[in-house]
Amino acid sequence: MRDVAVIGVGCTKFGEKWDTSFRNLFVEAGGLALEDGNLSGDQIEEIFVGNMSAGRFVEQEHVGALIADYAGLATDNIPSTRVEAACASGGLAFRQAYTTVASGMADVVVAAGVEKMTDVGTEMTTDVLAAAADREWEGIAGATFPGLYAMIATLYMDRYGLTREQLAQVAVKNHANGEKNPNAQFRKAITLDTVLQSTLVADPLRLFDCSPVTDGAAAVILAPLERAREFTDTPVRVLGSSQASSTIALHDRRDICTLDATVAAGNRVFEMAKVERKDIGFIEVHDCFTIAELCAIEDLGFCKKGEAGKLTEEGVTALNGSLPVNPSGGLKACGHPVGATGIKQVYEVVRQLRGEAEGRQIDADIGMTHNVGGTGATVVCSILGRV
Amino acid sequence: MRDVAVIGVGCTKFGEKWDTSFRNLFVEAGGLALEDGNLSGDQIEEIFVGNMSAGRFVEQEHVGALIADYAGLATDNIPSTRVEAACASGGLAFRQAYTTVASGMADVVVAAGVEKMTDVGTEMTTDVLAAAADREWEGIAGATFPGLYAMIATLYMDRYGLTREQLAQVAVKNHANGEKNPNAQFRKAITLDTVLQSTLVADPLRLFDCSPVTDGAAAVILAPLERAREFTDTPVRVLGSSQASSTIALHDRRDICTLDATVAAGNRVFEMAKVERKDIGFIEVHDCFTIAELCAIEDLGFCKKGEAGKLTEEGVTALNGSLPVNPSGGLKACGHPVGATGIKQVYEVVRQLRGEAEGRQIDADIGMTHNVGGTGATVVCSILGRV
Repeated sequence: MRDVAVIGVGCTKFGEKWDTSFRNLFVEAGGLALEDGNLSGDQIEEIFVGNMSAGRFVEQEHVGALIADYAGLATDNIPSTRVEAACASGGLAFRQAYTTVASGMADVVVAAGVEKMTDVGTEMTTDVLAAAADREWEGIAGATFPGLYAMIATLYMDRYGLTREQLAQVAVKNHANGEKNPNAQFRKAITLDTVLQSTLVADPLRLFDCSPVTDGAAAVILAPLERAREFTDTPVRVLGSSQASSTIALHDRRDICTLDATVAAGNRVFEMAKVERKDIGFIEVHDCFTIAELCAIEDLGFCKKGEAGKLTEEGVTALNGSLPVNPSGGLKACGHPVGATGIKQVYEVVRQLRGEAEGRQIDADIGMTHNVGGTGATVVCSILGRV
Repeated sequence: MRDVAVIGVGCTKFGEKWDTSFRNLFVEAGGLALEDGNLSGDQIEEIFVGNMSAGRFVEQEHVGALIADYAGLATDNIPSTRVEAACASGGLAFRQAYTTVASGMADVVVAAGVEKMTDVGTEMTTDVLAAAADREWEGIAGATFPGLYAMIATLYMDRYGLTREQLAQVAVKNHANGEKNPNAQFRKAITLDTVLQSTLVADPLRLFDCSPVTDGAAAVILAPLERAREFTDTPVRVLGSSQASSTIALHDRRDICTLDATVAAGNRVFEMAKVERKDIGFIEVHDCFTIAELCAIEDLGFCKKGEAGKLTEEGVTALNGSLPVNPSGGLKACGHPVGATGIKQVYEVVRQLRGEAEGRQIDADIGMTHNVGGTGATVVCSILGRV
């Protein structure tokens, strides 16, 4: 397998984007990535698009071809493939693009993610997202995503003594980072009180423990490392990309506080990248809910189970801490257009490693992404490093 | 890239399967493929699943993880990826599995396809399928798939002098083949009159010009060619697998009678496989409508444009002709569970090449598949050969 590099990245602003359409969101992100990589469309050989549910959000399937077409790439008849694993769809797109370049099937490949969530009402959005869980055993019984993660949070707090304030600190930290990210949906710092006094969604999770409903798209372009400098002076190397599955239903897990797919994907990507936990300068993790960020830090092996709340409280995961987590603002503050999130994470890591993260810049050589589908039935992790 | 072989195949009976669920359909096909390849589940390293619209047919996304789980493979946390390109979803799954094995990312990989279409009413089915076309320009104007292919048929008949009887002969031939296929939805021979006197669906297409609504699943297992004989005495080599895109909307095509994505995918796979048209013993093509089979034969380069109707009339594409097309019965008689069709095509080619096709056996060393999404916005072609 060949070494692979990211040679261009693009990301739309995330938010409630009433003035644009599903297809135009992608075109905007793809155009930014082409511009960033000094590429023209006719150099693109293949596309992978992560998207969870355009079928229900905008009544459009066949998303890969649609997107190749509206990006002006259909005339070259290039292959374009949609991949889906709920909120990990973007991560899957990145991994498949990586495999395609690494294998030699193609040289210049786009990995993108897009979701337009705000064209339907809140009730339908909740129902569409519930399709990421087990419809026949969870959704049908009324389980929503806040409800499922609330069960994790309840057991976790009871078992490990996590305080409500420690949990809220995840949101406070991520909003502080989001304030510094020009693409973030919420660019406003909050206090512990903002979280603690917000509406109760599913006990113990409150509104500010939950990632928002978001429109957005992101795209990154991959090429063989040996060709990377044809396109950019600042290629970023993909050291590894791994994926793991677990049971679709939360109640079938060995332990609902540990995402076994995170453990497996984490171990695999560290082995693939030949780096250790201590080499990682920062992580973009999947904080769909505050509790999810704490589980991620632990299940990836950065601290022992039950300790991530304390680390957060002590500032270890803050931008100026020793292990910054979610410098982009995470899903919580940057927003969570489900199919786009996994690619936005890669976008953030690349911008950081290139030294282009402006007010939120971290000095690091290696960064990592962690993207979760459902309550952890799919996890994709990638590690990227400066060349 | 490594040489790749198919080492096991499985397929459910196709039809209106009221007695089973979406997830169990896959489990049945996967189990048959494991048994066929003398494999146990713990030898599987990765899964790709083609599925068009479980989100709307059974309100379930995150299909890859669901399927790994219900196949009993979640405990090993193997990666499982859903791919989607409408009716070409199965073809995409096969191509991604091929790339994964060829690249060295994994050795033993499942490519599967599944669709459960009969759990919703006919009106909704028509609407779900219309999401394979351009929702904003075709679906919203009321265009259905029979309507879109009827436009192709109308222009084709006018331009090339295709007769109504020649078109009907495609269905007669495919039903004759389906009669001999134990997995086919319709195992009943029909006459020209059956087609010509059936209900008009979208002029000139009648009921028997259209593939049916079907439940079904199919799975094939791939491994490096050099390891294939660990599992089976009759490995079938994958000589190539290619994919191409075209415009999502029919009205944006250069010519609606020629599927440019079929032309591109065909040329690519012949180049990749290093074989010529004359080397192909038989083809499984995407006859979602009778007219589609004729376009496929021509666009793949097996005859000149406008001649496929005459070839069909003369029996060239019949089971005992010089270029048998759709020995399985095709989508028309075998049935068309959209996500499964591309994998069922590979299943048929493998069974034929192994000499296991019983009453419909063709003597051939090389077979080919052609799987279309929408009206040709995505096409996947694969060529397989005896080892």
